[in-house]
Amino acid sequence: MDHTETGRRSDARTVGVQAVEDAMRRALELAAEGPAHGPNPRVGCVLLDPAGRTVAEGFHRGAGTPHAEAAALAAARAAGADPRGTTAVVTLEPCAHHGRTGPCADALIEAGVAAVHVAVADPNPVATGGADRLRAAGIEVTTGTLAEEGEELLRPWLHAVRTGRPWVTLKLATSLDGRVAAPDGTSRWITGSAARAHAHRVRAQVDAIAVGSGTVLTDDPSLTARTLDGGLFEHQPLRVVVGTRAVPDGARLRGPGGPLLHLPTHDLDEVLRTLGEREVRHLLVEGGPTLATALLAAYAVDELHAYVAPVLLGAGASAVAPFGVTTIGEAARLATRSVTRLGDDVLLVARRAPTQNGRPARPTKEEI
Amino acid sequence: MDHTETGRRSDARTVGVQAVEDAMRRALELAAEGPAHGPNPRVGCVLLDPAGRTVAEGFHRGAGTPHAEAAALAAARAAGADPRGTTAVVTLEPCAHHGRTGPCADALIEAGVAAVHVAVADPNPVATGGADRLRAAGIEVTTGTLAEEGEELLRPWLHAVRTGRPWVTLKLATSLDGRVAAPDGTSRWITGSAARAHAHRVRAQVDAIAVGSGTVLTDDPSLTARTLDGGLFEHQPLRVVVGTRAVPDGARLRGPGGPLLHLPTHDLDEVLRTLGEREVRHLLVEGGPTLATALLAAYAVDELHAYVAPVLLGAGASAVAPFGVTTIGEAARLATRSVTRLGDDVLLVARRAPTQNGRPARPTKEEI
Ligand SMILES: NC(=O)c1ccc[n+]([C@@H]2O[C@H](COP(=O)([O-])OP(=O)(O)OC[C@H]3O[C@@H](n4cnc5c(N)ncnc54)[C@H](OP(=O)(O)O)[C@@H]3O)[C@@H](O)[C@H]2O)c1
Ligand SMILES: NC(=O)c1ccc[n+]([C@@H]2O[C@H](COP(=O)([O-])OP(=O)(O)OC[C@H]3O[C@@H](n4cnc5c(N)ncnc54)[C@H](OP(=O)(O)O)[C@@H]3O)[C@@H](O)[C@H]2O)c1
Repeated sequence: MDHTETGRRSDARTVGVQAVEDAMRRALELAAEGPAHGPNPRVGCVLLDPAGRTVAEGFHRGAGTPHAEAAALAAARAAGADPRGTTAVVTLEPCAHHGRTGPCADALIEAGVAAVHVAVADPNPVATGGADRLRAAGIEVTTGTLAEEGEELLRPWLHAVRTGRPWVTLKLATSLDGRVAAPDGTSRWITGSAARAHAHRVRAQVDAIAVGSGTVLTDDPSLTARTLDGGLFEHQPLRVVVGTRAVPDGARLRGPGGPLLHLPTHDLDEVLRTLGEREVRHLLVEGGPTLATALLAAYAVDELHAYVAPVLLGAGASAVAPFGVTTIGEAARLATRSVTRLGDDVLLVARRAPTQNGRPARPTKEEI
Repeated sequence: MDHTETGRRSDARTVGVQAVEDAMRRALELAAEGPAHGPNPRVGCVLLDPAGRTVAEGFHRGAGTPHAEAAALAAARAAGADPRGTTAVVTLEPCAHHGRTGPCADALIEAGVAAVHVAVADPNPVATGGADRLRAAGIEVTTGTLAEEGEELLRPWLHAVRTGRPWVTLKLATSLDGRVAAPDGTSRWITGSAARAHAHRVRAQVDAIAVGSGTVLTDDPSLTARTLDGGLFEHQPLRVVVGTRAVPDGARLRGPGGPLLHLPTHDLDEVLRTLGEREVRHLLVEGGPTLATALLAAYAVDELHAYVAPVLLGAGASAVAPFGVTTIGEAARLATRSVTRLGDDVLLVARRAPTQNGRPARPTKEEI
């Protein structure tokens, strides 16, 4: 069958596997051009003619703008190309619901595309059904092309849509002896400018940043996403303070930046549910140790960003307070995803082991 | 002048700069083939004919074997080549003393070499003077070719010869929150097998490994350099225990491996002097926290090998105990040399800032 070949045969009705994979890789690249934050997933779409040549491309630029499929169809028409008979290669299953824009499945059907290849099925209960709708219209739909890469691109969004709670990235900036502050509470700066610049770029990609009220009162952080020259990035995440103590009137958190949300509670389930309801897909937790430890103890950390500086303090608050480990076998062990040198510092990104069959979305203790 | 050209002109009496640098790079490679441990420096030598072509190569294979220059001259003769008129490119200034072998300077003079290029001058008070001796014999001597690379290769040896004390590498194997053991004292294993295998390769390159008696009594370590399959490397470092408590009769330290040296003292100056006198050039300190902290407090750590695992403990001994830091500006800050991923772990190698003009060999507090 043509599906198992690598060819871009112009006589074939169906585009070859290799051409589809190449297009999916491109669609993933396009998707990544869209904003990582926001309620909507990042999606890319490439339209191929029967010879496997690209007719048009599109990606979603954020809530209120056209979906990737619509963008690609519009681009085709703008270029005077007829989308009829093309193969649509899309990173996420085309939606079947009327949101701020019409269903993408319908747009593809109306445009007369011949086949659709999808990386990731849509887990969104209100949007799913697109593949069925396409099939009912006689369009051949293949799912799972570069599924892993597709899942990876959408990790926080998929997690949030599946669980109703944001994907939680815990950031730690520590000395080599695991401390986040000196004995007098000062912590600026443990890491160097390259690590701090990186952390600001991460802030600009998330929906919300949370700290405990201890950090607010000690550090008076602004929790804004700033460029190297100190200016604000266009996107500013929601600023969340967790804890019963009030945020002082003159706090920097009340200054320029994202909206401020004070959640006067210690109930992290409540915190995550509240943020999930507000369509926060990706939450970055920036400490301090009390909040970090409570999240670990609640198995609520999905990813860890550990910025480690070649610094020794010998004293001062540890990144993590006791959370029940008594012997080495009970250690919370994560799986490293990447190691990046940033100036003199290193960024280690690690995740809990992937969820296994039938296991809850939250990890067991061993997985953290 | 020919010296500023890159040519390998067969008509030139003097070999061009580029050819000399290429040969020095090769000589450094050769030197690195020799053992990193042992009282003697690692040295490589390349003999070039006037056209810049390699006539012969040699390197030092450890105490009791020929020096690099002698090895290269012997190789030339064995190949039927006449070393007369060649240019000797040597990583370290040829020695001028009678050790276990005759002075290399004399060997080069007798062989009739025309010129000698050296990376690093010999700091050894008993061996120095080789360059003068060569010059007195009418041989053109140039020093400082790839000096930095040469110094780097010989770092521990140069440090030891200059200061009379070993170069101290402190190894830490920590969780991301900087702990070296769980609350019950267990620490096997925090890091994974790739990191442990790396640490064993380092052991096989040093002259001695030290631990405090606390580690002996808690972990009963063997402190041998082992291959992946558990066998012993050929070279086994001296095993040093620092502390007043006795090493138990049945301790693994008394089993197969390097000789055992128990130094029943807390005086680290004394420890380092004693080891220096025993021609220990490179000492690897493998903890625990008490000994590590005492070394840091004494500004006696030259290099840090921090193996960091994606593990959180929340409790247990920290890698380093208090050593006087109260505020962030007083932190002991090192300069990162390399960051290497080893399985799920990361190895960060850092050093104190290089010694500056007129400063003592031991760093000031800010430098650590
Ligand atoms: N290097 C770094 O990465 C970094 C980052 C942040 C902070 N820090 C340092 O950390 C220190 C502050 O430490 P911290 O532990 O006080 O900060 P924190 O974790 O930000 O704040 C602790 C407070 O959070 C509230 N909280 C929210 N949820 C909680 C829960 N589930 N359980 C218990 N408390 C909860 C409590 O406030 P209420 O009492 O008001 O309810 C608690 O006192 C400072 O020295 C700061 O510089 C370092
Ligand atoms: N993860 C790792 O990298 C790693 C490595 C090693 C050890 N560990 C863990 O560390 C724990 C042991 O900690 P530890 O601090 O007791 O170990 P330690 O530093 O090896 O031993 C401490 C002992 O060293 C002696 N000592 C030598 N010089 C000293 C000085 N200048 N000042 C004070 N004491 C000096 C003292 O013994 P005397 O009282 O006999 O004089 C002191 O009690 C164990 O749980 C072990 O598993 C972890």
